[in-house]
Amino acid sequence: MSTQPVSSKASEAGSLIEIAHDAYGVHGVVSVTLNRPDAFNALSEALLDELQHALTSIAASDARVVVLAGAGRAFCAGHDLKEMRAAPSLEYYQALFARCTKVMLAIQRMPQPVIARVHGVATAAGCQLVAMCDLAVASDEARFAVSGVNLGLFCSTPSVPLTRNVPRKMAFEMLMTGEFIDAHEARRRGLVNRVAPAGELDATVSALAASICAKPRTAVEAGKALFYRQLEMGVEAAYQLAGQTMACNMMEDATLEGVQAFIEKRAPRW
Amino acid sequence: MSTQPVSSKASEAGSLIEIAHDAYGVHGVVSVTLNRPDAFNALSEALLDELQHALTSIAASDARVVVLAGAGRAFCAGHDLKEMRAAPSLEYYQALFARCTKVMLAIQRMPQPVIARVHGVATAAGCQLVAMCDLAVASDEARFAVSGVNLGLFCSTPSVPLTRNVPRKMAFEMLMTGEFIDAHEARRRGLVNRVAPAGELDATVSALAASICAKPRTAVEAGKALFYRQLEMGVEAAYQLAGQTMACNMMEDATLEGVQAFIEKRAPRW
Amino acid sequence: MSTQPVSSKASEAGSLIEIAHDAYGVHGVVSVTLNRPDAFNALSEALLDELQHALTSIAASDARVVVLAGAGRAFCAGHDLKEMRAAPSLEYYQALFARCTKVMLAIQRMPQPVIARVHGVATAAGCQLVAMCDLAVASDEARFAVSGVNLGLFCSTPSVPLTRNVPRKMAFEMLMTGEFIDAHEARRRGLVNRVAPAGELDATVSALAASICAKPRTAVEAGKALFYRQLEMGVEAAYQLAGQTMACNMMEDATLEGVQAFIEKRAPRW
Repeated sequence: MSTQPVSSKASEAGSLIEIAHDAYGVHGVVSVTLNRPDAFNALSEALLDELQHALTSIAASDARVVVLAGAGRAFCAGHDLKEMRAAPSLEYYQALFARCTKVMLAIQRMPQPVIARVHGVATAAGCQLVAMCDLAVASDEARFAVSGVNLGLFCSTPSVPLTRNVPRKMAFEMLMTGEFIDAHEARRRGLVNRVAPAGELDATVSALAASICAKPRTAVEAGKALFYRQLEMGVEAAYQLAGQTMACNMMEDATLEGVQAFIEKRAPRW
Repeated sequence: MSTQPVSSKASEAGSLIEIAHDAYGVHGVVSVTLNRPDAFNALSEALLDELQHALTSIAASDARVVVLAGAGRAFCAGHDLKEMRAAPSLEYYQALFARCTKVMLAIQRMPQPVIARVHGVATAAGCQLVAMCDLAVASDEARFAVSGVNLGLFCSTPSVPLTRNVPRKMAFEMLMTGEFIDAHEARRRGLVNRVAPAGELDATVSALAASICAKPRTAVEAGKALFYRQLEMGVEAAYQLAGQTMACNMMEDATLEGVQAFIEKRAPRW
Repeated sequence: MSTQPVSSKASEAGSLIEIAHDAYGVHGVVSVTLNRPDAFNALSEALLDELQHALTSIAASDARVVVLAGAGRAFCAGHDLKEMRAAPSLEYYQALFARCTKVMLAIQRMPQPVIARVHGVATAAGCQLVAMCDLAVASDEARFAVSGVNLGLFCSTPSVPLTRNVPRKMAFEMLMTGEFIDAHEARRRGLVNRVAPAGELDATVSALAASICAKPRTAVEAGKALFYRQLEMGVEAAYQLAGQTMACNMMEDATLEGVQAFIEKRAPRW
């Protein structure tokens, strides 16, 4: 298994986003690495466009799991403030945040589960990326903050996924103070699933990704879509949708074989 | 106090559901025990029907608290996969999940608080039962998983109450990996209220049930209904409903006496 | 820094609510202290009216942060039961809870973040006040309960903010048993942000308040309003509102200067 977030099979060397297939030693895993290490992987317009393009293309592929990582010392430091500051107009900022939101929602809407691999600092829209991913694994050296308020720019868009991950008062405190929390605290608050020593980060990501790749594709895809849709419904409508989803899921060949294998106490022939 | 989940006064010996009154040594507590120990209390159609019948009948009775338990080694292993696999049709599965959903919603809608007593494994729809109960007490030997995905059947209906108990990323991980968590982890995540050593499980259930039985019936019933209704509202509508509920509650004889007794520093005469 | 919640500059000595400016040694902090110590700061009609008046007046002022505290041994014991019991009519109770709700919503709607400073017992509507504040700092001697159910009066209105702070099963347990939890447990459940030894409570409140006072006013105000509005929306509508809010926020002079200062690696000139 690689100790780098990106395997040597990177398809577009030199671009702002690096994509690698069968990453982390697991068939079906695609790694997407933010690759502006000197700018702490700040989300410039060009990087956002490449990231959108990468996610759209992976969504339509036969990849099973996506791992989002950052090159260099930081995971992601948020928006590219230099670029933002150079063009101060309301229309420009509206378009920029709309573009960023499109990327964020693409993570939730793509059929594959997306795991954030956080090895360093994740701030502002970088912290938003972590919150927006379906799952997150952090090195014990990672740190998290929604720190825009320190510059007078409240992290409004990051607050959307943050408040859907973290208890209300803790989210409010992070947003209003801009203070950092460490990886263990992020796990306790619900922002991160697993914390590993830095040297075991990739092995931990690999194990989580491999566990999901071992499940039938249709169950994972239908499950992810249902997960987020039902969360925005009342309990009765949520059950209605979940029941329909599960009935269809049960009729899949892979599922009928999986259940049959369970009954016969043998491995499924997938 | 009994060390068995069901007292010796079981009213329907031999059926798939056992009901006992004044269980756990507390007047007003009804225990409902899933009684298919050899099938790990799998929710067959017949068992679901008996459970629905039992809950409907208890809802209309003067019982104060319900304890849901499982006979044998497991709490509940979810749906009866053998039965499900034998009749593969979309219509059948739609009807089955609708029937199961009706039981789940009956737990939330009945006037009595329902406590899950979890002594062993709770998987798939068995874990859903725990999430759906108002309260849950677990033995430190209990384990929890939404493991359908291992067979290719994503736990869609269990995800509805699970995601309303457990932080989002933790729920997603459980649903996508199918991995077990232990009782202490279940408590930290919000799936379980209290964890006890196996030998003290019934005493812990008993204490919790007795605490609720000591409150006036009307306050508990109106409170449970309000609890779930206001959760699905915006804060302003929630307050409106809560204020009306509380004003009506205050006008009850038991409440006026309870408040008067508090003022006079004496026990209420209920 | 004062070791009392209210500085010596109290503007209306002898009233039910004491207001002090530049409290906790921080310019811009207003302390609002419930001042019925002999009645454990019970929320009588007169006190609610004074509190409403105080919050309305502070909301329109240039104050930056509000600290809500209680005089004497308790933080707040909830409604004034003696007063309530003396006038038993549905109309009276409806009006009373509507009046109380108006105060509670004023906390959420005012532009300044409100920190609950909890040094002692917070019960029923006193616990509701803590839940309703944006942030809460507790002494390790503080204790919390929604204990109305012990008198037959389910804490319906307190359940509204409690269930929006605390995981569902834990909130249900607190509401149905009326049992106390201590400050550390309150922090683990999300009801409180920080816990300090009694002797360091004011220093902890002061540090949190000072951190927020150091941010530009417009970012804090727009951020607080956005925080609660987006929480009641689906993720897509939430992002739309958040993007608009952030674009407007970016166009503020203070923000443009803050971002420019960050780029130039200097302190902002605010």
